[in-house]
Amino acid sequence: MATNKPACAWAPLVVVVAALCAATATATAATTISETWDVEYIMWAPDCQQRVMIGINGRFPGPNITARAGDVINVTVNNKMHTEGVVIHWHGIRQFGTPWADGTASISQCAINPGETFVYSFVADKPGTYFYHGHFGMQRAAGLYGSLIIEGSPEHPEPFRHQYDGGELPVLLLSDWWHQNVYAQAAGLDSKDRHFQWIGEPQTILINGRGQFECTLGPARWNLEKTIDKNIQTCVDNQGSCKDEERCLRRSECGPYCPKSQCAAVVLDVRQGKTYRLRIASTTSLSALNVKIQGHKMTVVEADGNHVEPFVVDDIDVYSGESYSVLLKADQRATAYWISVGVRGRHPKTLPALAILNYTDAPPSSLRWRTEPPVTPAWDDIQRSKNFTYRIKARSDTNEPPPAAADRQIVLLNTQNLMNGHYKWSINNVSLSLPTTPYLGAFRHGLQHSAFDTSGEPPATFPEDYNVMVPPVNNATTVSSRVFMLKHGSVVDVVLQNANMLKEQVSETHPWHLHGHDFWVLGYGDGRYDPLKHEATLNTVDPPLRNTAVVFPHGWTVLRFIANNTGAWAFHCHIEPHLHMGMGVIFIEGEDKIRELDVPKEAVACGLVARTVAVPLTPATPKAPSPAP
Amino acid sequence: MATNKPACAWAPLVVVVAALCAATATATAATTISETWDVEYIMWAPDCQQRVMIGINGRFPGPNITARAGDVINVTVNNKMHTEGVVIHWHGIRQFGTPWADGTASISQCAINPGETFVYSFVADKPGTYFYHGHFGMQRAAGLYGSLIIEGSPEHPEPFRHQYDGGELPVLLLSDWWHQNVYAQAAGLDSKDRHFQWIGEPQTILINGRGQFECTLGPARWNLEKTIDKNIQTCVDNQGSCKDEERCLRRSECGPYCPKSQCAAVVLDVRQGKTYRLRIASTTSLSALNVKIQGHKMTVVEADGNHVEPFVVDDIDVYSGESYSVLLKADQRATAYWISVGVRGRHPKTLPALAILNYTDAPPSSLRWRTEPPVTPAWDDIQRSKNFTYRIKARSDTNEPPPAAADRQIVLLNTQNLMNGHYKWSINNVSLSLPTTPYLGAFRHGLQHSAFDTSGEPPATFPEDYNVMVPPVNNATTVSSRVFMLKHGSVVDVVLQNANMLKEQVSETHPWHLHGHDFWVLGYGDGRYDPLKHEATLNTVDPPLRNTAVVFPHGWTVLRFIANNTGAWAFHCHIEPHLHMGMGVIFIEGEDKIRELDVPKEAVACGLVARTVAVPLTPATPKAPSPAP
Repeated sequence: MATNKPACAWAPLVVVVAALCAATATATAATTISETWDVEYIMWAPDCQQRVMIGINGRFPGPNITARAGDVINVTVNNKMHTEGVVIHWHGIRQFGTPWADGTASISQCAINPGETFVYSFVADKPGTYFYHGHFGMQRAAGLYGSLIIEGSPEHPEPFRHQYDGGELPVLLLSDWWHQNVYAQAAGLDSKDRHFQWIGEPQTILINGRGQFECTLGPARWNLEKTIDKNIQTCVDNQGSCKDEERCLRRSECGPYCPKSQCAAVVLDVRQGKTYRLRIASTTSLSALNVKIQGHKMTVVEADGNHVEPFVVDDIDVYSGESYSVLLKADQRATAYWISVGVRGRHPKTLPALAILNYTDAPPSSLRWRTEPPVTPAWDDIQRSKNFTYRIKARSDTNEPPPAAADRQIVLLNTQNLMNGHYKWSINNVSLSLPTTPYLGAFRHGLQHSAFDTSGEPPATFPEDYNVMVPPVNNATTVSSRVFMLKHGSVVDVVLQNANMLKEQVSETHPWHLHGHDFWVLGYGDGRYDPLKHEATLNTVDPPLRNTAVVFPHGWTVLRFIANNTGAWAFHCHIEPHLHMGMGVIFIEGEDKIRELDVPKEAVACGLVARTVAVPLTPATPKAPSPAP
Repeated sequence: MATNKPACAWAPLVVVVAALCAATATATAATTISETWDVEYIMWAPDCQQRVMIGINGRFPGPNITARAGDVINVTVNNKMHTEGVVIHWHGIRQFGTPWADGTASISQCAINPGETFVYSFVADKPGTYFYHGHFGMQRAAGLYGSLIIEGSPEHPEPFRHQYDGGELPVLLLSDWWHQNVYAQAAGLDSKDRHFQWIGEPQTILINGRGQFECTLGPARWNLEKTIDKNIQTCVDNQGSCKDEERCLRRSECGPYCPKSQCAAVVLDVRQGKTYRLRIASTTSLSALNVKIQGHKMTVVEADGNHVEPFVVDDIDVYSGESYSVLLKADQRATAYWISVGVRGRHPKTLPALAILNYTDAPPSSLRWRTEPPVTPAWDDIQRSKNFTYRIKARSDTNEPPPAAADRQIVLLNTQNLMNGHYKWSINNVSLSLPTTPYLGAFRHGLQHSAFDTSGEPPATFPEDYNVMVPPVNNATTVSSRVFMLKHGSVVDVVLQNANMLKEQVSETHPWHLHGHDFWVLGYGDGRYDPLKHEATLNTVDPPLRNTAVVFPHGWTVLRFIANNTGAWAFHCHIEPHLHMGMGVIFIEGEDKIRELDVPKEAVACGLVARTVAVPLTPATPKAPSPAP
C-alpha cells in the first residue's frame, strides 16, 4: 500500500515540507510513507449485518499504516462524502511543529469539505502502537478508524526489541458497533427531557472490524448468563456467518467484499516455542474492554507508545484511546485457543468478541470449538481494574522522570448535568462546545478575541464544598468554547476529579486523552483529591508516560505534562457520546508562537478566517444588482 | 411563526438589504417575513416507523411559509447538524438580484458548515405555489423540505382570486419516503458494477409528511392487486397507527411529537356548496404521482406559480418539482371522501397514500371507511399522462407569449451510461459533477479559469446518427463541471431529448427543473426531435410558463426562456438519485455582470475563494516552527 520515498524530496506543500525537513533533520534514513485515501460511504457487514459506514478506499476498517520512527507520514485525504466534512486524527502522534495536522475539527483545522482534499504530513516521532480515527462529530463511531504502527529505528530503539523471536502478530484494534447510525445516535443525545435517548450498549464488539451479531463462534454452552441476558447460539460455521442466514447477506460470492468474510473471525497464527509481540489498541465509542487469551499469560511492555516496566498478566484491561504491546509466548500444547474480548465497567448487554490464537504446528483442528472461551473478569470488579492500572510504571532502564514540580495546577471536576432539559457532561460546570472557526486558525490570524467565547479561561477548580459522592446539586452548567491558555514550556498538573452522576450512587470510569502530548500519570485515588493528604503519595519517581488515562468511579487521577508543543490541543473523555455531550477542555499553548506558525492556508480557511481575513482581490464595483424585469 | 416588519427596516446584512430595497422599491405595503430555523437531526415517524430525519425546528416537514407577492422573505438558517453542511433552495423563486440566495450548494453558494448561520433574504416575486428543500447531496430525500405559499397582492393579482368563496385548503405537499437512509442510498448509487444498488421504490408515499407504512386507512378489500404486489391490511384506527403495534412506536403519550400523530391522515375540512382553492406540490425523490378525489372534479388554474387556462380534470398528475392550484367545489353529498395519491410512470411497489376530504356539515361519520378509495390511473398509461400535460396552456386573459424566436438552441440528450463500472446519467455524454468552489463565487472573484473544468462549454448537441430508441452504443461518457455561458438577455431554446436506457425498450419520464427562471413549454413529441419536421408544430401563442417540465419516454420537449437573471443556475432532472448520478447542466448568465454583484462574503467563502482570495491580514514571520524537544 505505502510507497517509500526519500525524506524531504517531495514538494506538493512546500511550507510543510520545510517544516518537516527541519523537524527530521537529525533522523537518518527517514523515509516518507505516502497514502492516498478516499473517505466515502460504504455498505459493509462488520458483524454480518449490512449497514452504511464511513470507509477508506472502499474498506472498513481503514488501511493499516506502518512506519519507522523518524519517517514522514504523508496521507492525502479526499473527502468523497457528499454532505459531510471530515478530519483524521492521528491518535498518539504529538505533531511537534505540525499542530495543524492533528486532525481535530474546530480545534486544529477546518473540516475537509465534501469534494476537497487535505494532505496530512507529519513525523512519526517515536515508536509505538497508535491508531487514527475521525474527530468530527461522531464519525469515529461510524467506522472511520484504522491502525498506525510506528516501529523502532536505530535512533529510536525499543528496549524489548530482541525479546520476541517470533516477530509481530497482527495488531488487534478493538471497537464497538451499533446498528443505529450515528446521525440517529446524535439526534437521541441532543433531544430534550424524556426525548433524550442514550446510545445504549453496542450490538457487537469488533476485533479488527469483525464481529458476529447475536451469535458466538464458540460452543453455545459457553456460560455467559451471568453477564449477558440473551439466548446465545453458535454461529453456523467458523467463518463468522450467523446461524440465521437472513441476518447475513444475500450475496455469497464476493471476495474481500463478501459480508461473510467481512465478519469472519480474526486468526493469529503462531509457532510453538516462539515469543510474539501482540499490539492491542481500543478505539471503542463507549466500551471498556478486557482481553484474555485462553491458557496464556501476557507480559506488558508498552503503553501508548511508551515503555513500561514489564509485568505479567492473565488478562488486560484496555480503555478507549489506550494501546498496549504485550509479549506472548506460544508455550502451550500446539492447538488453537480462544481470545476473548469482554466488556468491563458497564453492565454488558453485548456478547464478548472472539478471535483465535492458532498454533500452526498442529494440524487444523476443531478442538477449539469444543472448548469454552475464557471468561473475562466480572464487569463490576472495579478493584481488579484498579489493581491492573496501578501496576503500570515507567520502564526502569529508560525512565525519564517528570519535573519535580508543576508551574500550574488545573483541577477538572467532571459532572453529568441537565441544562435546559439537555443532558450534558461538564467540566467545573462548563460543557465544551466547539466554535466554527478552528482555534488554531483564530489564534494564527489574530481572531482569538472574536472567534469563540473569550470571557476568560474556564474555571480551573471547583467549590470546596462540592460533594463528589452525591448527585450534583448545583446544575448551573453553561456551554462554552473558552480555552485554557498555557505558557510555552510550563509544567502543568491536571487533577481529574470524578464525581457522582445524576443518578444516586453511580459514577463511571472515564478515559481522558490528551492531544499533542504524553503526560506522566502521577497517581490515582478514591474520593475527592486533597493535596494536603494526597500530594505526598504521588509518584514522581517512575510514573508511566501515557496519552490516555482513566479516572475511576468517584475517584481522582493526577497527571503532569510539559506544555512544550505550540498549538491548540484537545483534552477530553475518549468516550464518543461523552465528548459529544461536552466532556472536554481545550489547551492553547504558546499563544505568541502560534502567530509565527506557517499554518497551511487550506487548514484554516473556514469560518471567521475565511470571512474576516479574506479580502477579495477585485472588490465589486458598487453598482446596484440587476433589477427584476 | 412569522413576524412582520416594515420592508427595508432591518439591517443585519446591509449589502443584502440595499439590494432588496432596490428590488422591491416599486412594491407598496411589502412586509418582511422573518423566520429562524434550526436545521437538525430529529427522530420522527413519518409513516409510523421511527427513523432519523433532517428536521427544521424539531419538526418534519419544515414550517409552512406564507407571504404576499412583493414581500421580503428573510430566513436565518442555523445548521445544527454536527458534520453535514446544508443549503435551502427556494423552489420556483427566481431570485432576481439575489442569485446567492438560490440555495444550491456548489452553484450559488457554499454549504453552510456545521454550527454556521446563513441568512436567506429574497423577494417573493410573484404569487404561486412553491416549496423549499435541501439542495446538497440527497438531503431533500432525508426530509428537508416544506411549503412556501406566495399569495396575490394588489400589485400581483391572481385572476381566479374571486372564484373560491370557501378560501384555501391546507396545501398538499407530496413526497416519497425510504426506510434506508440517504447515506446508504448514496453508497449504493456510488458503488461499482454489481455492487451498485438502486434506491428501489419508496416504502411510503407521504402527504404533508404523513403516511402509513404497509397498511391502508381504507378498507382492506380495496383492490390494489393489479398494481401492488402486497398483502394489504387496514390500519387499526383512523389516526394512522398501524395494525402491528410493534411497527409503530413505544411511546404513546407525546402530543405533537407522538409518532401516532406524526403519521396520522391529513384531513381537509370543507362545507357543502363552497368552492376551495387546493394547492398541490410534489417534492418526491423519485415518484411521479397522481391525485384523485373521490366523487369530485378539479379545475386546474395555476401551475408552478403561473396562470393556466382553466380546465377540468378527474385527477391530476404531479411530477417531482411541479406545483398546481385547483379549484374544488364541495358539490357532493355531505360526508367524507377519500383523496388517493398513487404512483405513476414506474411499476409501483408502494401503497397509494390517502387523505380525507371531510364535509363538516355532516355528522362525524365512519362511512368513508366502508367506501373504497378511488383508484388512480394505471401506472403505465403514458398516453393518459401526455393527454393531461398537453392540455396545459397559458391563461388567455393574462398570457404573455414568448419571444418569437430564440438566439440560441441547446439540445440536451439524456442517457443512462456505465462509466468505469459506475452508473451515470449524462447529458450529451457529459455527467455533471459539481465543483467544491461554488460557480457564483468563482465568477464573482475571477476564479472561473481554475475553480472548475474550463475546457469550453459542454456539447450543445449530439450526433446525427444517435438512435434514441435503443440502448446507448457509445458509452464514452465523461464527468465534468463545465458550464453553458449564456449572454445576458438572450433568448434560449432548450430541446430536452429523451432516449432509451441501458436496458432494452425502457425509457423513463424525467421532470426537468430550471433555477432562476420560468420557461415557456413550446411543445412535446415522440421520438427524436427534428427541427425541420417539428419546429412548425411548436406553440408560440399560448405556451404555459413553468419552472419544471417533463420529457416523456423516448420523447422530446422544447422550452424557451430569457436569460435575464445574472447568476449561476442549475437545470436538472428533479429526481434526486438522477441528479446525484449527474443528470443536470449549469447555466452561467451575464458573466460580466456577476463581477459587479455584491455577493455576501459568507455565501462564497469556501474552496478556492477562501484559499486563493484570502490574504492573511498579518503574514507569519518566516520562522521555523518549534523544534521537537
